[in-house]
Amino acid sequence: MADARACAGRVERLRELMAERGYDAVILRNNPDLRWLTGSERTFDNEVAHTAFVTADGLWLHTDSRYYNTFVTRLGKDCAWTIDQDIVSPATWAAERARATRSRVVAVEDTCDLAFYDAFLAACSAASIACLTPRMHGDICDLRMVKDAEEIELMRRAQEVTDAAFDHICGFIRAGITEQDIRVELENYMLSHGADELSFGTIIATGANGANPHAQPGQTVVAEGDLIVMDYGAGFHDYHSDMTRTVCVGEPSAEQRAVYDVVRRAHEACAAAVRAGVIGRDIHNIAVDVITEAGYGDFFKHGLGHGVGLEIHERPNFNRGWDKPIPAGSVVTIEPGIYLPGKFGIRLEDFGVVTEDGYEPFTRSTHDLVIVGK
Amino acid sequence: MADARACAGRVERLRELMAERGYDAVILRNNPDLRWLTGSERTFDNEVAHTAFVTADGLWLHTDSRYYNTFVTRLGKDCAWTIDQDIVSPATWAAERARATRSRVVAVEDTCDLAFYDAFLAACSAASIACLTPRMHGDICDLRMVKDAEEIELMRRAQEVTDAAFDHICGFIRAGITEQDIRVELENYMLSHGADELSFGTIIATGANGANPHAQPGQTVVAEGDLIVMDYGAGFHDYHSDMTRTVCVGEPSAEQRAVYDVVRRAHEACAAAVRAGVIGRDIHNIAVDVITEAGYGDFFKHGLGHGVGLEIHERPNFNRGWDKPIPAGSVVTIEPGIYLPGKFGIRLEDFGVVTEDGYEPFTRSTHDLVIVGK
Repeated sequence: MADARACAGRVERLRELMAERGYDAVILRNNPDLRWLTGSERTFDNEVAHTAFVTADGLWLHTDSRYYNTFVTRLGKDCAWTIDQDIVSPATWAAERARATRSRVVAVEDTCDLAFYDAFLAACSAASIACLTPRMHGDICDLRMVKDAEEIELMRRAQEVTDAAFDHICGFIRAGITEQDIRVELENYMLSHGADELSFGTIIATGANGANPHAQPGQTVVAEGDLIVMDYGAGFHDYHSDMTRTVCVGEPSAEQRAVYDVVRRAHEACAAAVRAGVIGRDIHNIAVDVITEAGYGDFFKHGLGHGVGLEIHERPNFNRGWDKPIPAGSVVTIEPGIYLPGKFGIRLEDFGVVTEDGYEPFTRSTHDLVIVGK
Repeated sequence: MADARACAGRVERLRELMAERGYDAVILRNNPDLRWLTGSERTFDNEVAHTAFVTADGLWLHTDSRYYNTFVTRLGKDCAWTIDQDIVSPATWAAERARATRSRVVAVEDTCDLAFYDAFLAACSAASIACLTPRMHGDICDLRMVKDAEEIELMRRAQEVTDAAFDHICGFIRAGITEQDIRVELENYMLSHGADELSFGTIIATGANGANPHAQPGQTVVAEGDLIVMDYGAGFHDYHSDMTRTVCVGEPSAEQRAVYDVVRRAHEACAAAVRAGVIGRDIHNIAVDVITEAGYGDFFKHGLGHGVGLEIHERPNFNRGWDKPIPAGSVVTIEPGIYLPGKFGIRLEDFGVVTEDGYEPFTRSTHDLVIVGK
């Protein structure tokens, strides 16, 4: 259970933003935002089943019978939220809130789907009211960027499981098993050793499959001399870890070693440059420069890193589009890679917290190229 | 790999609909729709990273470098789609397609997020063009309702793993272990015996936790006399299974037996009534009637069932809102439940295909109350 005072502070920050912009109310439908504001742990799943309506002096949450008891249990009887399980469409419910609170400027997070937005306007029209509906472009995601001590502790603990799983899996891998065998063993280990969820679908990609950064594990058999990209993470109380290691089955070739070394140098140059206030794009470009100078510039196309928290990909980012400063307290990945189609892929990813004067990785696993299967 | 001819037929059905409505083009962003149209297996994950633009004579797909090679490998060089990994926002890309194809009526699936829709209009404006943008309210989901033989075979196979996992887990459960222990064992079994994914986050809810239909498994310890609700499924080639069984640890009480019997009677009365052409709401109401007559009407609030396919929840539905006929070839769950807060919950769920004259469940596990832990 997130600290009730922390959650009250989060609501307060949202209301300050509302006051500044002249919003009478905001409508929120994005589960991670709702998790962050309410503190209701392990309640939200993948379904878009909840709607919040926030005004300067009211907090309403609409859900359905499948989740209602869980919310009531998690939040307690004296909580600040009015929780509602009326059988009515979310759009009709939100329009009724707008009517009852006489809200005229009702901001909507633009992560909501177009169907909901259209239905909300139609429901307002049916209720003979009209609202201005300014879009919020991820303002709550911006508020969520800076993590508090409890959030950081949850992610440190998620990473402990993730590092332990890496040690375990290095002892398990050998030529002759499949990607799927590795994935099952790795996931089973994390869920049996403290993870309450997986962060995302585990990526295990051996040999040439590793050249596809988002490959899904399949029946490909691991062969002697393969590099294996493993990108995975543990969920803990709705927070996440994220880590990638590339290991070699038996002795690496000279080319494999050389490319690995480029990725590692790119990673470490970026990590050394991160501190509060740096521009996300500038850090990304450090990796681009290292990789390009080594002659592999065409083979690193994705962003260098992303924020991690209640979502596995959140703000801020280290990529070519992020031209804003990275705040202290944000938790981000650093994950350069080189992908050689038809040959192999290499990615090396840590994650950690940005501080006033540096970057503290939560990840403890080695940056050395680990040789497995011997 | 889905049959290329099947996919061509799907595109053809979409184009017939476009012609009928006078759409010059449609924009699609929903991964399951894209999976269905392209046939690209095990390529899509949870990220909204792909956009399709379809006209009467063109098929374009925009993705990014993390997925590009996988699409090219899956779809082959001679495929009907033009696959594009240009580093440009999806909205800008779609507006450029609208400009280049001189499309004036560009339909958008209203599952897209408001941010994309806003950005598309802005990009059109920046390109000095204007489009009409009628909303499609899940038309592709409607097309996806009726499954072909290959789709049905994939779900039958997913359910075989799911049934086998039930047998396995019944031998594993005993008083003293946690919900999480059961979840880990169950998921590990499925992934080791043919499943390539899980259908969704497994629900394991023992004792009073079972009264929350969407409980998440935790550290609650299973006690003698507990009912345990287990709702889970296997993914296979992007298709899903979905099953719920409630088992008893040791001998059930008279009340547990009686409530179980009500749920079972509701389930079987519904299953016996299903055939092509029935109205979804009517089948839901059969369960409501059985449960209400038994005195538990206040404790069954969710819908009776939902379609299953590339999504775990898709069309059609057995619920109070679905007043349309259920077509032959749709694959749906039947899952009545009774949830007694503070005491226990019971749900019994099969899934199967609707035929001209009945309902063929894929699920083979018994409807009897299974006693475990002895």
